[in-house]
This record gives sequence, structure tokens and C-alpha cells, in this order.
Amino acid sequence: MQTGLSESSISTLTGSKYTWINGKAAEQLAVEDRAIAYGHGVFETVCVLSAKPQLWSLHLNRLASGCRRLYIPLDLNQIQIQLNQFLDFFAIEGDGVLKIVVTAGCGGRGYAIPSVIEPNVVLLWFAHSPAKNNEHQKGITATVCDARLARQPLLAGLKHLNRLEQVIAKQELNTCNEDLAEGIMLDTEGFIIEGVTSNLFMVSNGVLATPQLDHAGIAGVMRELILSKAESVAVTVEIGNFSVDSLIAAEEVFFCNSLIGVWPLTKLVGCGEPVRWMYGETTRLIQKTIGPYCFPI
Amino acid sequence: MQTGLSESSISTLTGSKYTWINGKAAEQLAVEDRAIAYGHGVFETVCVLSAKPQLWSLHLNRLASGCRRLYIPLDLNQIQIQLNQFLDFFAIEGDGVLKIVVTAGCGGRGYAIPSVIEPNVVLLWFAHSPAKNNEHQKGITATVCDARLARQPLLAGLKHLNRLEQVIAKQELNTCNEDLAEGIMLDTEGFIIEGVTSNLFMVSNGVLATPQLDHAGIAGVMRELILSKAESVAVTVEIGNFSVDSLIAAEEVFFCNSLIGVWPLTKLVGCGEPVRWMYGETTRLIQKTIGPYCFPI
Repeated sequence: MQTGLSESSISTLTGSKYTWINGKAAEQLAVEDRAIAYGHGVFETVCVLSAKPQLWSLHLNRLASGCRRLYIPLDLNQIQIQLNQFLDFFAIEGDGVLKIVVTAGCGGRGYAIPSVIEPNVVLLWFAHSPAKNNEHQKGITATVCDARLARQPLLAGLKHLNRLEQVIAKQELNTCNEDLAEGIMLDTEGFIIEGVTSNLFMVSNGVLATPQLDHAGIAGVMRELILSKAESVAVTVEIGNFSVDSLIAAEEVFFCNSLIGVWPLTKLVGCGEPVRWMYGETTRLIQKTIGPYCFPI
Repeated sequence: MQTGLSESSISTLTGSKYTWINGKAAEQLAVEDRAIAYGHGVFETVCVLSAKPQLWSLHLNRLASGCRRLYIPLDLNQIQIQLNQFLDFFAIEGDGVLKIVVTAGCGGRGYAIPSVIEPNVVLLWFAHSPAKNNEHQKGITATVCDARLARQPLLAGLKHLNRLEQVIAKQELNTCNEDLAEGIMLDTEGFIIEGVTSNLFMVSNGVLATPQLDHAGIAGVMRELILSKAESVAVTVEIGNFSVDSLIAAEEVFFCNSLIGVWPLTKLVGCGEPVRWMYGETTRLIQKTIGPYCFPI
């Protein structure tokens, strides 16, 4: 590793091991950045195995689409170049979590987008913290969060930086008496949308179903991978609006994201008597199919 | 002015004249700040006249209540101390716009709130740009934005840093052919909520009405001042849910915020034939009443 950062500056970071901004080892953004002012930007959380970012083209596609919808000009080649520099500079060879943040850059006071946007591209590297044991892969306990997601078609699907709903939901989970690995979030109409940090799938009568995300939620890359692989393993998929009742009636339920892969949900608490699902064949099949793209169990 | 900032560092700021972070002249926040990651923080925009912040206790109250709702511990005395240091350090004596941002400080990867939150307090100073002429005070043109506000009771009323809806609405106004000073935002159910950068009041049959903000919108300090002063000038107030039809049927309409004071709305475009309202007696009375607390006309 080159020593571009002083010991003292590294010590100011509380979680990330290495940070990189616009092609240089750096740790700070100007206070006028529109990410700070308005959450004007997008991010990606990427599973890196042996220095190779997994599902990279899916991440890049989502980054591009998010930037386009938020008026941020983005050169995807630049992201690739910066990533290569970053991995090289810090001599990263192993596994870890790469977070990419693209902001709308600096602006003056007021919501108006500057006539010229110069995005800031931030790369952060975090050590991977594997689950304490493999319970997460065998079956987790969750609850339905009281915190609901607002219905906002303008922002639905995007992995943008306006994430107070998730912060509030996560705080709800963390102050709960039960040891909950995840929480299910409904929208304000009561439809199931996703997990606080994941997407959600249900298996009923051999059909793999997941909520549509045109009014709320984040369209995860692992969700996209699963949808694209399902047909090839002879599983029919359905994207729609689902109630808690249809969740309870499902045969299997699982969460997914780009880091954890697939977590079977085997117990739901907080809605009267606990609801239990089996860790079934379809979940195992999907888990096996997407296994190579996330941290090993 | 003391020379705590180098010329080169000042030149990186695109809009603010002076910046102050946690009691020091500084311009950057760590990339791990939760304001960047999730918009986890709140802000205030304060009218400063002759170095005196107007409606200061209302701003401080809102700051405290916003921080409480977002789990950010805040010492209001510290805000006062930092403001005094800031005004003193830069020898600020005149008028300007003070922006205060309080973030949830640094955190690791993930939505979970750190066990100890050390908020970052940022003060920014902007020159006041008066309107080109006094049209703004005599009557402006607005439209109803296509961009709607999501209904989210958990965040309604707060001046938090998740402001992509306003960024999108402002962009809609700025790419419109008409010269529009403001846009009216409805929620996704079609109720009137506010202006993109202001609150909204209507006068009908001698009653001063403004939308309730328990599902969407920012509870502005100027709105609060007007509500508290209205009774004393013999105007009855009503807070409720209002449709565009009731807006069109109103006798007078005005926008307000802590910088502009009161802007009469005299013309609405984009909803068929233009709608016109008079710049009436109640608006003038309110304008006169709140005049001392914002930039002079």
C-alpha cells in the first residue's frame, strides 16, 4: 500500500478503511456539496471478491440510470478508471465492500441545479464482516416495521441519498427487544415493498413473487440478478402488489442483497402469533444459483 | 476579517462567503458524514439583519425538534456560541443569509445509528440577493408543479436534508418557458401543501387558511410567525386540507418564507386559462406585520 494518507487522517475515519475522491486518496467533501445540502446523489454497495467487483455491469447500469433521473452527468468510463486506480493505489487483492457515492457536486444556496454540474465521485472500502454464524443463511427472524415507506414514483427504485426512512426503520429494529436480522417495510398503503437493507421474494405454488417498485423501494442488483436467473432454473416469476396476508400465506420467503446473497426468512414476530416458513427447495435453488456473486456462506 | 482561510481554499466555495464547522473556519466534512450517506440531518435558513438573526428562537426550536425526531443530540447553547464566534471571526455586521446545517456526524457503513452520535454543526454565510425589482412583493406568477410531494408522516414538517423532491420540482420550474417565481406543490393525493421554497396561505371570506403539514411539507418559521400574529390583527386562521379548487376560489393567495417575507400570488398559469387574484388588504396587512423580520422590500 502506498502511503498517500497520513496516519492521523486515516484515524478520523470511523468505518471505512480507504477512501478515494475524484481520482485521489482523500477523505473530505466541500460543505457545499449537494449531497450534504439535499441528498442530491446516488450510491452503490458492491461485493468485491478477490479484488473483483461482483455484478459490476448491473451496478454501473443502476448508477447511470439514477444519475440520469437526478440530472447528474456521469461518465461511466471515469468510474471504471477511478476504481482501477483505487484498487491499485491501496493494493487491494482480497474481499471487501466497495461503496460508490456519486454526488451532484457543489452548488450555491437553493435547490436550483447549477448550470454546470461537476459530480464528485467517492469510493470507500470497508472490511467484510461475516455473520457470526451461518444462521443468516439457514433462516432469520424479522418483523414488519412500524415505519412505512412513502409512495413517491419520482424516486422509486433509485438508490439515492435520501434515506431517512431507512435510518428510522433501522433504529426501530435496533431498539426492539427481539434479535432481528431484518425488518419488512410496507408502503403507506400497506403493500409490502422490501426489507430495510434488502429486497424480498416469496414463493407460492411454485411462483417466485416480488413487490413491484414503481412507487417505493430500491431496485436492488441482486433482485435483478434473481429475476434474470429464475426462468433459467424453471421458476416462474411474478412482480406485483402484495399484502402482508399474501406474505403469511407464502410457502417460502427470502431477503436478498448484493452482499448477503439470499437470507431465508423462517420466522416473523410482532404480528400476533409468530409466523413460520420453511427453508425450502426454491430458496435453496436460488441461493445456489446466485452464490458465486456474493460473499461465501 | 481575520485570515483563517487561505485564498485558495476560499476559492473552492461556489456560493457561500464564509463557512464554519464545529467552532472553526473550515470548508469540508468527512465523506463518512451521515448527511452525505443518508441526508441524516436538518438545516435552517435564517434572515440576518445588521448581524442579528431574525426569528431566532423559532429557528432554534425547529432545529431542536428536528434533531430530536432524527435521534441527533443537540446542545442549543453550542449553536448560539458557535454563531457568536462565527459572526465575530468574520466581522459580520450587515445583512445576509445564514444557513445552519446539523448532521448526525460520522458513522460506518449501514443505516444503523452509531451508539454515540457526535453531530457536525456547519454555519454558512451567503450574500443576500435582493429581487431585481419589487414585482415579487407586488405579485408573482406561479404554476402547479407536476412533481408531487410524497405523504410521509414520519418526516412531515421537518426541515431535514432529504430534499430531492424540491430539487426535482425546482428543475421543473427552471426548465419551464414561463418566468415563474415559485411553484405550488401538491401531495400525491392532490392536496395543496406548499411552495417549492415557501409556505402558502389563502384568504377566503376573511379567513386566513394554510395547509396542514402532518403528512408532507416543511413547517416554515415565517408560517409559524404569521399564524401567531394573525389573531392579533383580527384575522381568523384555519389549518386544513385544501384542493386546487379551493385555491382558485380564494380571494387572495400568498407565499412566505423567512427570507422573502410575503409574496402575493397574483397569477397562476398552466391550469387552463390563467387564474388571477388581487393583491388584497389581508395580504398587505400580513406583509406589514411581518415586515420587520425579513429583508426590506
